[in-house]
Amino acid sequence: MSYTAEIIGVGTELLLGNIANTDAQVISQGLSALGINVYYHTVVGDNPERLKKALNIAKNRADIIITTGGLGPTYDDLTKQTLAEAFGKKLVMHEPSAERIRSYFRQNPNRVMTENNFRQAMLPEGCAIFDNDWGTAPGCAFLAEETYVIMLPGPPRECTSMFQHCIVPFLKTLSDAAIFSRSIRIFGMGEPMVEQKLQAFMTTMENPTLAPYAKEGEVMLRVTAKAQTMAEAREMTGPVIDWVKSTLGDVVYGLDVDSLEETVLQLLAQQGKTLSAAESCTGGLFSKRMTDLPGASKVFKGGIVSYSNEAKKSLLSVPSQLLAEKGAVSAEAALSMASGARKALDTDLAVGITGVAGPEPDERNTPVGRVYIALAAPEGEWVRSIQIGRDRRWIRNLAAHHGFDMVRRYLTGLDLSLEEK
Amino acid sequence: MSYTAEIIGVGTELLLGNIANTDAQVISQGLSALGINVYYHTVVGDNPERLKKALNIAKNRADIIITTGGLGPTYDDLTKQTLAEAFGKKLVMHEPSAERIRSYFRQNPNRVMTENNFRQAMLPEGCAIFDNDWGTAPGCAFLAEETYVIMLPGPPRECTSMFQHCIVPFLKTLSDAAIFSRSIRIFGMGEPMVEQKLQAFMTTMENPTLAPYAKEGEVMLRVTAKAQTMAEAREMTGPVIDWVKSTLGDVVYGLDVDSLEETVLQLLAQQGKTLSAAESCTGGLFSKRMTDLPGASKVFKGGIVSYSNEAKKSLLSVPSQLLAEKGAVSAEAALSMASGARKALDTDLAVGITGVAGPEPDERNTPVGRVYIALAAPEGEWVRSIQIGRDRRWIRNLAAHHGFDMVRRYLTGLDLSLEEK
Repeated sequence: MSYTAEIIGVGTELLLGNIANTDAQVISQGLSALGINVYYHTVVGDNPERLKKALNIAKNRADIIITTGGLGPTYDDLTKQTLAEAFGKKLVMHEPSAERIRSYFRQNPNRVMTENNFRQAMLPEGCAIFDNDWGTAPGCAFLAEETYVIMLPGPPRECTSMFQHCIVPFLKTLSDAAIFSRSIRIFGMGEPMVEQKLQAFMTTMENPTLAPYAKEGEVMLRVTAKAQTMAEAREMTGPVIDWVKSTLGDVVYGLDVDSLEETVLQLLAQQGKTLSAAESCTGGLFSKRMTDLPGASKVFKGGIVSYSNEAKKSLLSVPSQLLAEKGAVSAEAALSMASGARKALDTDLAVGITGVAGPEPDERNTPVGRVYIALAAPEGEWVRSIQIGRDRRWIRNLAAHHGFDMVRRYLTGLDLSLEEK
Repeated sequence: MSYTAEIIGVGTELLLGNIANTDAQVISQGLSALGINVYYHTVVGDNPERLKKALNIAKNRADIIITTGGLGPTYDDLTKQTLAEAFGKKLVMHEPSAERIRSYFRQNPNRVMTENNFRQAMLPEGCAIFDNDWGTAPGCAFLAEETYVIMLPGPPRECTSMFQHCIVPFLKTLSDAAIFSRSIRIFGMGEPMVEQKLQAFMTTMENPTLAPYAKEGEVMLRVTAKAQTMAEAREMTGPVIDWVKSTLGDVVYGLDVDSLEETVLQLLAQQGKTLSAAESCTGGLFSKRMTDLPGASKVFKGGIVSYSNEAKKSLLSVPSQLLAEKGAVSAEAALSMASGARKALDTDLAVGITGVAGPEPDERNTPVGRVYIALAAPEGEWVRSIQIGRDRRWIRNLAAHHGFDMVRRYLTGLDLSLEEK
């Protein structure tokens, strides 16, 4: 059978728009990979009455209710009490959790422990308890009538970690099938084209399934197989991945990776090559994304944010004449920046990015969204010219995408020019 | 009277965890500033039956229903049809919207117009129609019985823009009071301390209200006043802001700004000063945040991401001996990086950031989370040493916060050292 789930976010800060409901997003991704259908998300404030009403609605439309938030020690954290009442459970003191809380405060002497903190150790009788590796509030789960009720803490780091490490294994036991899923990442082909090429498969196959997710400027496909055993399920995904790769070609940049930069980092590390960057319109974003990744220091030696013409000249040795004749936003400037960075930072490869991020065209009337991206390598230099939208954030992000894509293509021996796909 | 609202997000991509529900966040912020209470968020998939059920629940608990998503031309975009049915309205062709769609495709000849696109111009009879500046799907609103129903497109840029420019003015007309709200931004004092200092006011005052919002590493306070006229409401916020400023002191860095970097950009522009950066552990994040802002090129000349010791030596002239004796993560290295950037980029001010972002301590066993931030200026140099958590993203973000805070403090003549608050 297939279970359905509802995620209830509890917290006035969500209703005030203080934070986005990223907990629901992470949990939804995980449930979807387990083959559990999520039909509703609900958010309520720190208000027992409205939470109780939301629970009554959820009970009638979901097999699994997962709440996030409201497990803290302050007066407005009421999830446990309200759920215990709604499902007819008593709250009892859980001594191991109380001891964990005492020990947390012993290790963090700057923090002040109050009696309220022990309310976090009061848990519904007979529930399964999940330790919190990042905070003091434990999570818990119980079965009431025919509904599985799971309570997780609200802070995203605590919630995500507990969900991945404790709840996913628990939910897997509910399913009589093993589920295995892999993600395929694509850059350089839009979602409509990806869907069109894969349509025959996506609309007819039920196991494995193939579902597309649009990411900013790229596409992710998830292949999910169900079988009796994990090994079987895993094996079933293989032919689908091969078929997707051969159908879409070299726009497929990675399996089970999170980003283009992760693929680039892996390739650089495998090949023992180093990278640097010269950035104008992206203003540090390319370097920032590279160094978001732990381990980047092994392959990324640094970058130069040449946000002014003086910086392009003095730090990257871009000739004044080139800037005067071709302008700072030109294929020639991008190439000169890339080779300048390669020399200044003494790396195997270097990326140069220059463009107009807006909101206004540059002094030569180059339109907003025009970006040149160059790659310098021992064997030669390449440059791409693109025109991408008019939103500053989008332009900068896509420009960095293209920089990483050029490095990836170079390192895997692919054509470096950009085809329209 | 005070209205209550429910936000219904429509889209299977939300339930799959493909995207977070940021539309609900932005709309909630706006409603909260208008004094409209948001009691529930709901998310449903592209499923007419479940959307209809969600609408029936929402009708009974909200005066205003705002839907996001499901206005596109593809088969799974069913919001308009379902809402029209649920509220007994007919869909009719809106000719000006049809013409806008035709004109959009004339201007974007790469895109293919299909008959489906015209479904976007079918709108509930007698509704108010909101043009979409960023896409083809218009938004709309109608009053049904006693419920205000508002439909917005799902893509965040389209939704946010339409909400701010069309819906906020519309909702203001519902209120017989004028509402004026301002935000106060704070860096350098935690939320518990801010709340403790302002508690007397926050718990007793009803108009204006003062509400805290925790941001990553900082705090935002919103002061909201209601009065007969906007001028009156605005005037009422003045004394509260003055009181907050005098109570909290110089940790208040701005009014109605979005970030420390925005304040820094304004101050630099006012004073005609230029800035550059030398970044190690932040790897370009400081420069990236500065250049996120339009107009940064007037004051920010560039940065050097010195992610290797070679780069620190060759591009920033950090002495080899200093690196050998004190290490790359040291107050001395941060100071040398800042003055190196100031010279290399020829700016009035420069920030230098070096630290251990993790996941591992550095080769000298400097712990994860130790960061040194230096400022170089014509009058001298300053350095802060901080120890901040163990999460890579958090460490990098806080380190950049501190860099901006030092620039702000320098430019406003404040003490540059960091007190524990």
